[in-house]
Amino acid sequence: MAGNSFGTLFRFTTWGESHGPALGAVVDGVPPLLDLSEDDIQPYLDKRRPGQSRYTTQRREADQVRILSGTFEGKTTGTPVSLMIENTDQRSKDYSEIARKFRPGHADYTYWKKYGIRDYRGGGRSSARETAARVAVGAIARKVLGDSIKVRGALVQMGPHHIDPDRWDWDQVDQNPFFCPDEQAAESWASYLDGVRKAGSSIGAVIEVRAEGAPAGLGAPIYDKLDSDLARAMMTINAVKGVEIGDGFAAAELPGEDNADEMRAGNEGPRFLSNHAGGVLGGISTGQDIVVRFAVKPTSSILTPRRTIDIDGQETEIVTKGRHDPCVGIRAVPIGEAMMAIVLADHLLRQRALAP
Amino acid sequence: MAGNSFGTLFRFTTWGESHGPALGAVVDGVPPLLDLSEDDIQPYLDKRRPGQSRYTTQRREADQVRILSGTFEGKTTGTPVSLMIENTDQRSKDYSEIARKFRPGHADYTYWKKYGIRDYRGGGRSSARETAARVAVGAIARKVLGDSIKVRGALVQMGPHHIDPDRWDWDQVDQNPFFCPDEQAAESWASYLDGVRKAGSSIGAVIEVRAEGAPAGLGAPIYDKLDSDLARAMMTINAVKGVEIGDGFAAAELPGEDNADEMRAGNEGPRFLSNHAGGVLGGISTGQDIVVRFAVKPTSSILTPRRTIDIDGQETEIVTKGRHDPCVGIRAVPIGEAMMAIVLADHLLRQRALAP
Amino acid sequence: MAGNSFGTLFRFTTWGESHGPALGAVVDGVPPLLDLSEDDIQPYLDKRRPGQSRYTTQRREADQVRILSGTFEGKTTGTPVSLMIENTDQRSKDYSEIARKFRPGHADYTYWKKYGIRDYRGGGRSSARETAARVAVGAIARKVLGDSIKVRGALVQMGPHHIDPDRWDWDQVDQNPFFCPDEQAAESWASYLDGVRKAGSSIGAVIEVRAEGAPAGLGAPIYDKLDSDLARAMMTINAVKGVEIGDGFAAAELPGEDNADEMRAGNEGPRFLSNHAGGVLGGISTGQDIVVRFAVKPTSSILTPRRTIDIDGQETEIVTKGRHDPCVGIRAVPIGEAMMAIVLADHLLRQRALAP
Amino acid sequence: MAGNSFGTLFRFTTWGESHGPALGAVVDGVPPLLDLSEDDIQPYLDKRRPGQSRYTTQRREADQVRILSGTFEGKTTGTPVSLMIENTDQRSKDYSEIARKFRPGHADYTYWKKYGIRDYRGGGRSSARETAARVAVGAIARKVLGDSIKVRGALVQMGPHHIDPDRWDWDQVDQNPFFCPDEQAAESWASYLDGVRKAGSSIGAVIEVRAEGAPAGLGAPIYDKLDSDLARAMMTINAVKGVEIGDGFAAAELPGEDNADEMRAGNEGPRFLSNHAGGVLGGISTGQDIVVRFAVKPTSSILTPRRTIDIDGQETEIVTKGRHDPCVGIRAVPIGEAMMAIVLADHLLRQRALAP
Repeated sequence: MAGNSFGTLFRFTTWGESHGPALGAVVDGVPPLLDLSEDDIQPYLDKRRPGQSRYTTQRREADQVRILSGTFEGKTTGTPVSLMIENTDQRSKDYSEIARKFRPGHADYTYWKKYGIRDYRGGGRSSARETAARVAVGAIARKVLGDSIKVRGALVQMGPHHIDPDRWDWDQVDQNPFFCPDEQAAESWASYLDGVRKAGSSIGAVIEVRAEGAPAGLGAPIYDKLDSDLARAMMTINAVKGVEIGDGFAAAELPGEDNADEMRAGNEGPRFLSNHAGGVLGGISTGQDIVVRFAVKPTSSILTPRRTIDIDGQETEIVTKGRHDPCVGIRAVPIGEAMMAIVLADHLLRQRALAP
Repeated sequence: MAGNSFGTLFRFTTWGESHGPALGAVVDGVPPLLDLSEDDIQPYLDKRRPGQSRYTTQRREADQVRILSGTFEGKTTGTPVSLMIENTDQRSKDYSEIARKFRPGHADYTYWKKYGIRDYRGGGRSSARETAARVAVGAIARKVLGDSIKVRGALVQMGPHHIDPDRWDWDQVDQNPFFCPDEQAAESWASYLDGVRKAGSSIGAVIEVRAEGAPAGLGAPIYDKLDSDLARAMMTINAVKGVEIGDGFAAAELPGEDNADEMRAGNEGPRFLSNHAGGVLGGISTGQDIVVRFAVKPTSSILTPRRTIDIDGQETEIVTKGRHDPCVGIRAVPIGEAMMAIVLADHLLRQRALAP
Repeated sequence: MAGNSFGTLFRFTTWGESHGPALGAVVDGVPPLLDLSEDDIQPYLDKRRPGQSRYTTQRREADQVRILSGTFEGKTTGTPVSLMIENTDQRSKDYSEIARKFRPGHADYTYWKKYGIRDYRGGGRSSARETAARVAVGAIARKVLGDSIKVRGALVQMGPHHIDPDRWDWDQVDQNPFFCPDEQAAESWASYLDGVRKAGSSIGAVIEVRAEGAPAGLGAPIYDKLDSDLARAMMTINAVKGVEIGDGFAAAELPGEDNADEMRAGNEGPRFLSNHAGGVLGGISTGQDIVVRFAVKPTSSILTPRRTIDIDGQETEIVTKGRHDPCVGIRAVPIGEAMMAIVLADHLLRQRALAP
Repeated sequence: MAGNSFGTLFRFTTWGESHGPALGAVVDGVPPLLDLSEDDIQPYLDKRRPGQSRYTTQRREADQVRILSGTFEGKTTGTPVSLMIENTDQRSKDYSEIARKFRPGHADYTYWKKYGIRDYRGGGRSSARETAARVAVGAIARKVLGDSIKVRGALVQMGPHHIDPDRWDWDQVDQNPFFCPDEQAAESWASYLDGVRKAGSSIGAVIEVRAEGAPAGLGAPIYDKLDSDLARAMMTINAVKGVEIGDGFAAAELPGEDNADEMRAGNEGPRFLSNHAGGVLGGISTGQDIVVRFAVKPTSSILTPRRTIDIDGQETEIVTKGRHDPCVGIRAVPIGEAMMAIVLADHLLRQRALAP
């Protein structure tokens, strides 16, 4: 059943398994005449790449992207851009245990029930390696957005530990291995996560992604609202269990007086006095920052034995060894950025068709 | 820009404005030979209908649905089912104020920016009257699901007041005007919401929708995951600002040991020892209850004057009189149920194609 | 199974059966700020309307269209335009014969096999009454195209009788009941078709539709080519069995020297010295006239008894009485025009997104 | 603008240019548990491969396909199947002439107008090399169809020379370099096409593709009819200018008595006494053979100088040297077969969802 594509006018399809020869994406609908080479994409892949600190999986993947089509003499031609990333560190190991047992919290059981077969090597298609492909696509989406729309994200909560929004400093995000915008939080998270890692455990996280500079008018009500597309986009990321826009769940506790963002005249059009809405009203962008947060559950690949069953229905236990991230939320930051850029690029093109 | 459709195989399109002559939906992909008449749909519309208690808008709409096509002798034929609901209480009033001023927190400004024109009578297309159409569609989706899959919802939080999950009683849901499953909470909410209403204010809420009896295997990874489709579906409902599956944002605070749902052998297939996942792993249903929660912001239609601008960019104030719900979250319960049924019906048909 | 929609950005869905209470269409993606009222649509419906000459079915339908949504104060708002046409002449008759027997050449048997049920009154959904809805949509598509793109069609062959292309006169098309551009042919067709009609027989036809003024650059290779979309569009019309672009099947007999359209410099861009291609190269418009022809089979509703079977598989005979067109191709002219306008409108919007 | 995908449930996207490093396809919606390896695909590519006789282009491409994802231990897993074919004979040559001049009859001018840029090496994306990808996809579609549905095609007309239908012999199709089912015609075509080739000219052709064994009930009216999807599918093939189903354009000349296929009771369900309809009524398969024909124009790559303009609008002449097929219709036979298999596979899966 076809379900591996995303987008309407800027539309991509990803393919590939964790331990297959390669993975990739075909991006259809890329406008022509954009400057594009591998060098525009690689930095985003490097940001997501595993093995860069002791806080992420030690799988070593070069994650070198190749553009196989859709460009000519350094520019996009309007034809499909095919991206391929070879898998290089498909460590040969014994999968006999995982092949027969369902790992709790993973997709082993559900893929088995759905398809009657699964590629059990490292999760196969359900592995987060797929996200490398969409991070690459996100780099192309940024080209569509141009320089005036800026998309960036940060880790704002690790387990029970929140950042202090008053200490938010974008410059800090690249200064620590957590994409954390709060220098003090980052320091305390380091020792906290060391503890989690050494205990063979894992922990969840919350990521915030913001787009600045997006014009008012993006989004196609009723069913292709900008925020419903963003919610879908973030929820497609592995391990995401919740999404909110602007104040999100906190809005449930607000009275109407406090929630609506009042407007005043500004030098360059209307000025909002607050942004509880997260930049979206009625499914359409307001011109303010677009603010999305999503929650990532802790990986279920932990060293503590868990009760499960095997493919014959027999009760058993499982310990997931292998190379895993104690906090998969960290690497979800560049992935969330990519999905935000992708959603905006699609709606930007759609809006062009409407109001040329 | 086409954006008013939802679904792949069970696919519907809604149309209509708050104060136009009628609104409706065309449902394409309804399987043949289902028993279907207006009587199957009307009860769900009645549940959503305004004016049924002092806690919802006093607009009086009969919300009588007519089936205009797609059935023959009481059964569906496989051809499009066209549903129409006439607007009867389009109270003639003076819209001159709202026509020129942007109501903060509403979609007035964004529709204006997107389309360069808007139907300002009662919100036009951005009005929650559109949800009547999808509630009607949801009734057809339930026919597709059959009797073995049960979808129902409840209000679990009103403003800062949560229900006590230990007091959850489905039978209570229809016994109070809040769709509240906790009898004690419902009582305290009555006086609380009276206060909100009398103050001309409004308040947000959280709704939980559950599907019981859905088989394992529904959902199409990677980009049409069951949970990403549910997130999109709920976020298309007016005023929704957040969606979560299973433990949702709380999962961010959990260690891996506590989050993964362990499995044991059961009499009728595997048995899970908990349901943190909310019935979805890897974007595919596990066979457990599917659990979704969404947050609804307070309506911005309140009696307190708010600062805004008009279409000429001049600063002004606005008070939204009219007939409004102090807690729009209440009527979101049947709407959330409808969207859950719709998503499941679509994925049920998609799964049939895969594994006949 | 959803299959009643057409288009990507300009996208419509039709609904309704031959003898249901009404039929209609929802048009999503109509750009805002177009002048639109029923008066813009009705003339095209009138052109298609039955009962206007002795050469078309004597069913009397007013075919009055109502716009139920999507416009405000005479202009489109960018929201879905819902169109409804009530069926008024659902002549009450005895359908017991047709209910149990499959009419050869009609869709009776195939709908039965596909759905296990069918609305047998007048063909139900398979009736050409559905085309009223798309003719109405075509009128909106023409609004999107504007005045500079002109779409018009003509009957160029009736049974074995071809027009003489050298006598083509567009002004003649509205002067005879056949939409025939050749005055002499129209005269001879009158007596020919009288003979067919009086014999209780029917005859096929070929229609040509041309678009003048379409810019170069429309069409989205590889699978949404302009000509592949046109071929699909025309083949969705009832009774159509063949479609060709430009020289069509005649191109199979041409050597390369004769087929390629040479180019010269012109005052307003390139000038082609011929138009064998029918205005499309590589799936993209050239700026020349876009030329499509399609063949319509004779209706199978004739007075001669035909051998068939009934729903129990028993052999029997059937005579289709009722009110039918001796040459259904005649009324296919405005339908073909509508589909051409629809395809062009969609690709015009798509091109805007690409090259704003 | 996304336009490089085809299909609803069985859905593929192709990518790649004539002279890029590779080309390929991603096939989404392949059901799980089908046996699939490169060996299942390669024979179809070999059939389409250039350079196999003096009647096709002398470009030498190995056209070796690799499966990069979607299979595990020789079976499909339900995840996307990524196919890649490397371009090996991208002969280094001087493209300076073609880079600046528009070849009449080719897509040079239209790609330029649409995108403002084109990859001029060998036609870039508009080259028929793209069809290698879909032939590979067609091999997977055949797996979905299984052994009971047989799809095969033949060349039935070369230039003005038709086969004699009475001499049709499927066994002959693989015995001559033309996929001609008529032994005598094949012999006379050999000398005819030698003459065309030596004259540096080219000629058009007509291909017929038949599917045997397809069940009744495939096709989704109104806009996803089986025949409208087939018409679209065939018209996406390079150089195709016309498509017909069953009697096609000849049906325009028939009276109703002769056109409708009468029915009798048979041993295994209904039996039709003829097949003018080509196996499709009302857009749904009847269970008879599905018969499609399409016309291919002569390639415009010929040795005779043709008048044209360059990208500066200056008048000039062009001679297309290079390696070209005197009758591109020959190699369109396996491509047409692939598209028929693809359309049927998609509708077979769609029908499963409807009537499990």
